[in-house]
Amino acid sequence: LVITTDLFLEKVHFRRDWHQPEVAGHRCLARGLSDIAAMGARPAAAFLSFALPAELAGEWASRFVDGLLRLARVHDVPLAGGDTARAASPAAAGGALFAADIVLVGGVRRGRALLRSGARVGDLIYVTGALGGAAAELALLERDAGGYAGLVRARRGHPHLFPEPRVGVGEWLVGRARAAMDLSDGLSTDLAHLCEEAGVAAEIEAARVPVHRLALGAAGGGLELALHGGEDYELLFTAPEGRRIPGVIGGVGVRCIGRIVKAGRGRPRVSLIDAEGKRRSLRNGGWEHFRG
Amino acid sequence: LVITTDLFLEKVHFRRDWHQPEVAGHRCLARGLSDIAAMGARPAAAFLSFALPAELAGEWASRFVDGLLRLARVHDVPLAGGDTARAASPAAAGGALFAADIVLVGGVRRGRALLRSGARVGDLIYVTGALGGAAAELALLERDAGGYAGLVRARRGHPHLFPEPRVGVGEWLVGRARAAMDLSDGLSTDLAHLCEEAGVAAEIEAARVPVHRLALGAAGGGLELALHGGEDYELLFTAPEGRRIPGVIGGVGVRCIGRIVKAGRGRPRVSLIDAEGKRRSLRNGGWEHFRG
Repeated sequence: LVITTDLFLEKVHFRRDWHQPEVAGHRCLARGLSDIAAMGARPAAAFLSFALPAELAGEWASRFVDGLLRLARVHDVPLAGGDTARAASPAAAGGALFAADIVLVGGVRRGRALLRSGARVGDLIYVTGALGGAAAELALLERDAGGYAGLVRARRGHPHLFPEPRVGVGEWLVGRARAAMDLSDGLSTDLAHLCEEAGVAAEIEAARVPVHRLALGAAGGGLELALHGGEDYELLFTAPEGRRIPGVIGGVGVRCIGRIVKAGRGRPRVSLIDAEGKRRSLRNGGWEHFRG
Repeated sequence: LVITTDLFLEKVHFRRDWHQPEVAGHRCLARGLSDIAAMGARPAAAFLSFALPAELAGEWASRFVDGLLRLARVHDVPLAGGDTARAASPAAAGGALFAADIVLVGGVRRGRALLRSGARVGDLIYVTGALGGAAAELALLERDAGGYAGLVRARRGHPHLFPEPRVGVGEWLVGRARAAMDLSDGLSTDLAHLCEEAGVAAEIEAARVPVHRLALGAAGGGLELALHGGEDYELLFTAPEGRRIPGVIGGVGVRCIGRIVKAGRGRPRVSLIDAEGKRRSLRNGGWEHFRG
């Protein structure tokens, strides 16, 4: 049994003026589903608790739940319960903020759940999909929220607005991957965490990192966004070198981007090897709460 | 498998200026444990998510978790996970509010969980402990929060500050009670819900309702507080008339207060019979969110 809980807070995880309520609902559930995917589990049920400011109690809340349920149907996950309350205002002057907690329950064969701590020296490192797209799309939204969001018709190909948790890939990886996690804080940060959990280090080849098409126009061809941009909700995993990992799993591209190596004093936790073979330390550049 | 989620929000479920952080932590977990108790399940693990305003990030948060863990140890429930985030402020002027979601996972034999919908005509109606104490203590706190809370040394006997979820009683009731729920919104409101779920009605004898000693000094000897005061976290349950229900279960008093009767058009959902045998409709008087 796998249980995940994720907060989804206004002004932290979404902004009312940038995100349509359906987008917020989708992103809320995607956070939880991605955690389930990262452990290789099959989602069984979702529980949603939210504190609702008075002015969102009608249409906004209904559209939020619609967006959440639409993604839930894609993965055949029932919304099985939760809690609701009216959100209080901190002061007479200030408005109340929306706050939600999304809980996912999933199942995976006993002892087979994918963990961050499973990486071993010599493992190859893989990522699903392409990286940096969510950060690139967020930048578009920052520049012109109304104009950009108004143009979006399809859900596919919009990794910030409609991230696609890799549930099918996660299930496929059970018994095949040694370690896995989802990319929520950015590759540099998340890969460092994965290495810390196993007491190992990692080397990434810059040329192999899949850059999302939305990020290609950014400075440096989008590599910085792909390395440090958060909320792509792709999977990061390792597998022994001899194990066959196809280039596409359940319709999702999979790319080998590097290798797990021994950790050592004075050696960077994560190294980036550029096209000329030069190696540099890849510092955490992702988003972490409480870091400001 | 039983899963409950309960929001615990500043200015809705606690006030920073009235409740010590340990009290808030205790009350947060008690909400979840009481839900588990109401289903007759044994709690297996708790998950706590909270959004923390910057000014609470040090000692306050630590004492909140201490209070929660102390109650968790009483019931041998590990805090198995959760999520934390920094709470955002709605406006530059307004402070951020603390918001938590407490998730409890419990186990009960398949098909044996106690439900609200199980009540049948002829069942006797029981409550644990005594009622109205939480509302009475809340009134003391409202009058003089600093003075009152400063006097409280023990945890026992303080149903508002340190409610005692009836986990042991709930487990004992499995296979013995027909329907159960916890008293969070007040007897009048909660009993009406229980009746609605089963399509039945209820008659309560005023003289049998156990009034908490803290409520005895209130107007009418505390009966109104016992009938309508919320957050006692006692159990309300029904059992067939012939079934032996002891007066004390696991150290907790149990009292028969009435009987389930047929629902009928024009007949009140819950009736109160006074000492002279006069019957009146018991209107919902408890606290419900979104009612203002």
